[in-house]
Amino acid sequence: MLKRTYEDQNCSIARALELVGERWTLLIVRDALLGLRRFDEFQRSLGVARNILSSRLNRLVSDGVLERIRYQERPERFEYQLTAKGRELAIPVLALMQWGDRHLSEQPPRIARRRGDHSRVRAVLVASDDRIVRPENVQVIPGPGATLGSARRSR
Amino acid sequence: MLKRTYEDQNCSIARALELVGERWTLLIVRDALLGLRRFDEFQRSLGVARNILSSRLNRLVSDGVLERIRYQERPERFEYQLTAKGRELAIPVLALMQWGDRHLSEQPPRIARRRGDHSRVRAVLVASDDRIVRPENVQVIPGPGATLGSARRSR
Repeated sequence: MLKRTYEDQNCSIARALELVGERWTLLIVRDALLGLRRFDEFQRSLGVARNILSSRLNRLVSDGVLERIRYQERPERFEYQLTAKGRELAIPVLALMQWGDRHLSEQPPRIARRRGDHSRVRAVLVASDDRIVRPENVQVIPGPGATLGSARRSR
Repeated sequence: MLKRTYEDQNCSIARALELVGERWTLLIVRDALLGLRRFDEFQRSLGVARNILSSRLNRLVSDGVLERIRYQERPERFEYQLTAKGRELAIPVLALMQWGDRHLSEQPPRIARRRGDHSRVRAVLVASDDRIVRPENVQVIPGPGATLGSARRSR
């Protein structure tokens, strides 16, 4: 039988993908990082069917990535804002953007910069001394939450 | 009609997701970063149907993320190694892992460390001066590859 989920994977990447790996979900987070807040704004940006967008937004709210906030009383209207947990997705999202910029786009469609001085921002790996570590100098090993299976897989 | 692709999105994140956003694909990259190389190793680690694994591996090879290398002549046997382009996915993959560790796992199932001194490695955003930028201090704006639509979306 074909597995539909990553449930039996003891892995924080698999858990993150269960939540944000679904088609459109990371693009909704991208749009929220760009400042979009209202259903119709997301809908226009993504061109996705309204029922799909609605189910993705609800899922992100119930998982604590977005917060649904009423901005008008009569008639009631709501907008979606990233929570602190959601804002932290800026790191993987910008890391993916940078990889796509380098390998899949001729010119970067978007640029990430630091507020204030507008210095270009990039995603990197750093060690405890805050020095940048190149991908080939990173090792991944079993951690304290490892099960036998995932420990055996790592080497 | 329900859209099946992100093709009309002028966005490096959407392009990256077209390539690595499919179920299992980023977990194959994770396993490759952990040192797995052979079909049966991936199959055992992921517990995914062989035909699905096979199609995902072929896609990653044709997209230049993995390289298929013959390690035995009779009978012919192949293994899969990350290319330089594939190794760069360590940044988004470890950024996702870190987010999952923080929000979705009690204890980290895996730890990323620097080869040599074993200092813990984390994914961060830095500006041109290599100083760390917090997610709330990042702005995303239209870049040189922006089209009118994506420019209008950004603000």
